[in-house]
Formats: sequence, structure tokens, C-alpha cells
Amino acid sequence: MFRLGIDLGGSSITVGVVDDAHRILARTAAVTPKAETRRTIPEVIAACAQETLAAAGIQRSSCIGAGLGTPGICDTGRGVVRYAHNLGWNDFSAADALQKKLDMPVRIANDGNCAALGEAVAGAAKGCESALVLTLGTGVGGGFVLRGKLCAGHNGLGGEFGHIRIAADGEKCSCGEFGCWEAYASATALVRQAARAASVCPDSALHRCGTLSGSTVYAAAASGDPTARSVTEKYAEYVGMGLVSLINVLFPEIVLIGGGIANAGEALFGPVREYVHEHSFVRDRSLLPPIRAAALGNDAGIIGAAALITDIE
Amino acid sequence: MFRLGIDLGGSSITVGVVDDAHRILARTAAVTPKAETRRTIPEVIAACAQETLAAAGIQRSSCIGAGLGTPGICDTGRGVVRYAHNLGWNDFSAADALQKKLDMPVRIANDGNCAALGEAVAGAAKGCESALVLTLGTGVGGGFVLRGKLCAGHNGLGGEFGHIRIAADGEKCSCGEFGCWEAYASATALVRQAARAASVCPDSALHRCGTLSGSTVYAAAASGDPTARSVTEKYAEYVGMGLVSLINVLFPEIVLIGGGIANAGEALFGPVREYVHEHSFVRDRSLLPPIRAAALGNDAGIIGAAALITDIE
Repeated sequence: MFRLGIDLGGSSITVGVVDDAHRILARTAAVTPKAETRRTIPEVIAACAQETLAAAGIQRSSCIGAGLGTPGICDTGRGVVRYAHNLGWNDFSAADALQKKLDMPVRIANDGNCAALGEAVAGAAKGCESALVLTLGTGVGGGFVLRGKLCAGHNGLGGEFGHIRIAADGEKCSCGEFGCWEAYASATALVRQAARAASVCPDSALHRCGTLSGSTVYAAAASGDPTARSVTEKYAEYVGMGLVSLINVLFPEIVLIGGGIANAGEALFGPVREYVHEHSFVRDRSLLPPIRAAALGNDAGIIGAAALITDIE
Repeated sequence: MFRLGIDLGGSSITVGVVDDAHRILARTAAVTPKAETRRTIPEVIAACAQETLAAAGIQRSSCIGAGLGTPGICDTGRGVVRYAHNLGWNDFSAADALQKKLDMPVRIANDGNCAALGEAVAGAAKGCESALVLTLGTGVGGGFVLRGKLCAGHNGLGGEFGHIRIAADGEKCSCGEFGCWEAYASATALVRQAARAASVCPDSALHRCGTLSGSTVYAAAASGDPTARSVTEKYAEYVGMGLVSLINVLFPEIVLIGGGIANAGEALFGPVREYVHEHSFVRDRSLLPPIRAAALGNDAGIIGAAALITDIE
């Protein structure tokens, strides 16, 4: 049998048809509508689904359901998106609306949770008893998967890893709080840290790398620029700080990091591992979970969304 | 059928015999031996078990196993206590040693985890899908129970809630790190905070309450002493800070707080709830987990240890 996996983002929507082995057989993308989104987004998804199924040569009746990965806070039990500011959704019964359009069972989850589930069932955490998967991007997203099932808290309202606090009265976070991990460990935060450091170092190569981004900051560090180096060193500590708290609580069998920043490779992973080994409550290196790169990129969200149909709890 | 539940502490050992309805039918206590503990502690436990079974009139053959709640870090999968400083244990195969003495299957878990499991199966979280149970005492212990099973991480090495970080370069913790929640939210930390505040307020009633403890500090606050009030107000914020991080990650159906400090009742719970409502990622009060007092006191550890025999994962 087959499932639809829907990756709904602020700028684009991708619908894939996924088989029992978690392979994407076909996919169709569209621009996310900005107006009347409660009506238009389900319509666009339904159109993409029809096109994708046709491309894969699969009958709708062979699909046992569709999973939707969406930004924001989801009440997975009731299929309701509680808040998704960039979609203009507030207490929207997305699962019901989509079920009517697609004529099949629909389950929803936060996009970071879907990506985590995708990595757990088919990516770098495949075969692990438990996995913590983090996505360092505009924010810090992620999910915790235990025995193939998403552990997203009561009604799916947990798994907000970016909003653990790492500093008592720290940086202001997009959520309105101060000191959240996301305000230090997201790609957005890295860029802010680099801009601040560059502003007091007129000679830094950071001034010559065009638009600051995760990759340009890491490239400047790799070229030997001392300002960029000190920024990336401190950034790895910030990533490590939140990770230590999460490991002390969840202790997954494996930790995966995805998102654009993960492309920095060992320049990021090496110092993060060092920090975690030095500061975790369990000090024995041999017992600590490995920290590796996520493997599936954007496919993780589609595969994980499709896996919601059997695998959420 | 019956199970033995063993609550092993630094100063005393209690062994209870527990029935299928999680009731303690009889219990026997002894002083924790301090010398040759790898040999003597299993011996004392075996003697207590024999006495308890006799008192309950139950044959050893009617016991399907024994659960041991122990201080320190446990590798529950292998039945090994990794570190338990106050017992002098380091990589000790406690389950094996005890199994030989008791002649029945033995499982082990951290004492805070056992207390959480006890509250979940038979206490204030009975019937809840998930529960986060915290014990505020010398340290901050606890456990997270999902669908009747302890979620203590890979090999049981997680659930170290006291060692999430709430301040970047904060108070030194007993684990050697800085800024751990335990260094702010344990009973020990409250006493330290009160002693500091009293030292700069010669008129404070805290000077007249004898030995500082959680209950004397709360009593001084209740009597209207402004110094004690400001200490307990700040302490509730510290408790709330870690709790917000844990709720954002785990989002349990219910939060329970136990330990001596919980006897302060609404003087503690009221401000903690306020803090959590104001600072959690999910802002809708109606969705947040209730925060209540644990119900079973010291029995939670025995009942939870006994429940390890069927209920750990």
C-alpha cells in the first residue's frame, strides 16, 4: 500500500507518494498560497496529490492515508494546527479540511517532528531504538522518535526543543521569551553572532563574504579568519549546551543534526561532540550517543509525514 | 502474583512485597551497610526480603521478580549501576548480584525513576497517558512515564532532569557542571539561597528558625518575613524555569512534584504554576499540564521498583 507525505512550508508545498519501504515514488511541488489559506492550501495540496498519484501510476484507492507536516504547534490528537503564524492558521482543523479534499484519513504533525520520523524510519537513524533529530535553520526544530514512533508529548504539543532555556536572562527569542536555545543555536542566531563580531572587527573576512549565512560564516572560518573562527567556536558551544540538556533528559541512542548548518560538516560536528563529551552528566564517552549528520535532507519531511499514518503516538 | 520492590538509599533500605494492584502488603527496613557494599547490600536486601515475605505470608515462589531502585546512574538494560557515589558502586552488576541472592529475576532503575513509575501506576498520575514526576530533595530527581512505562533513555541513562542547564555560567552543581537546574531548584539550593539572603538581612526571621530547611524557610515566609518571602518567590521561579524547558520538550499530561519541599503546598505550587503559564511555549492555559503534589511519599519508590518487573522500557 501507499501513503501521501505532505511537506507544507511557508513558501512551498511538496506532496510525495511513498511506498511501504519508505521510498518516494513521485513528488509534486507548488507555491504556498498566501490568501484564504484555510481553503486554498488544502485545494493546492489536493491538486498536487492528484498529479503525484498520476505520475506514479497509483490509484487513490491504493493510498491508505496522508500525513501532513506543517509549521507551528499541532494538536496531533485532534488534527488541529494551534498556531502557525506564517500560514495565518490559528486553531485550524487542518486534518479535517484535508481529509474532505483528499478523501482519505489524514494525520498531522509539526514539520520538525516529521523530519525526525523520516530519519528514524528511513534515514541516518534507521534501526536505532531511539533518535533525537535536530534541524538548525531559521529556528531550531526537531523530534524524538522512540521505537519507530514520534514522542511529541500529550496531544503532540511537546518536542519544542528550540525553546529549552540555556541562559537565565539571555537573548530574546522569536517566541517572546529570553534565553531560548533557538536564540543561540539556529542559523539565524549564527548570522546574528557573526554580524555582531564583524561590526567590531573591521579587518574580518566576514566583511568580504557577501550576505552572511551559515555557509559563508563557516567558509570564512575555514579560510582562517580569526573573527569567524571565534564565532563558529562559540556557536558550537551554544549548540552543545542545549544538546547536553536534551541528552541528559532523553538520552537517545543517536543524535542527528540537519538543516543548512550541518553542511559545515566536521567543522561543526567535531567541536559539538567535544562539548557534549565534556559536559554531559554521563561522562563515559563510550556510553554517549553518536552525533551525526541527518541523511535525507528535504525528503525526510515527506517520508516522515507519510509515516504518520501508522507511526505516530 | 507478587513482586518485591526495593528502595535502596544512602542511609536505609526498605523492601516491600507488592501485589498486582500495586498495594504494599508488608515492608521491612534496615540500615544501609557502609563497608564491602557489593557483598553486604545484597545480603541485607535478601534478609529483608525473607522477613517481608514471611510477614506477608507469601511464598518466594509466588514472587515473579524484584525491582531495585538505587541512587546513581543505572544502565537498566544490563542491570549495572554505573556510578553511585554514596554506595561506593562503580560499574557494579547489581541486578546479577541480587538475582543470585534472591533467586528471582531482578531489574534495576534509578530511584527517582522508580518513584515516578510508582506515582504513574498507583499514585497521583494513575490513569494519565504520560507523567513527569519530580522530586525536590538533596538533588532534583524524577522520571517520565509514558503509557505505564518508564522512558529513561537508551539503557536507562537519561531522565537526569536535575542536570538540564538553566543558566549559562551559573551556580556550581554537585555534578561538577555550572548552571544545572538542581543547583537552583533542589531543597539544598533553597537552603543555600536562604542562608545567603539571611546573611545580608540581620533582622530576618530566618535567623530565628533554627536549622534552615525547606520547611523552616517556607514557615518564615508564611509568617510574613520579607527576606524569606523574596527567597521563596525566587525559588519558585527557579523551579518554574526548568519545568518550562521540560514541558516544552516532553509535554506530559500531568506534572507531579514530590519531596519535602512539596509540603509547602500552594505557597510553592501557586507561583510555580504562574511561572509555567507565563513562560511555556504553549501559552494557552487550558492546554498546559496540571502541576500537582505527588501522592505516595516514600511508598512511590517501593511500588515503582516492583513495577519495573513488567513495566520498564
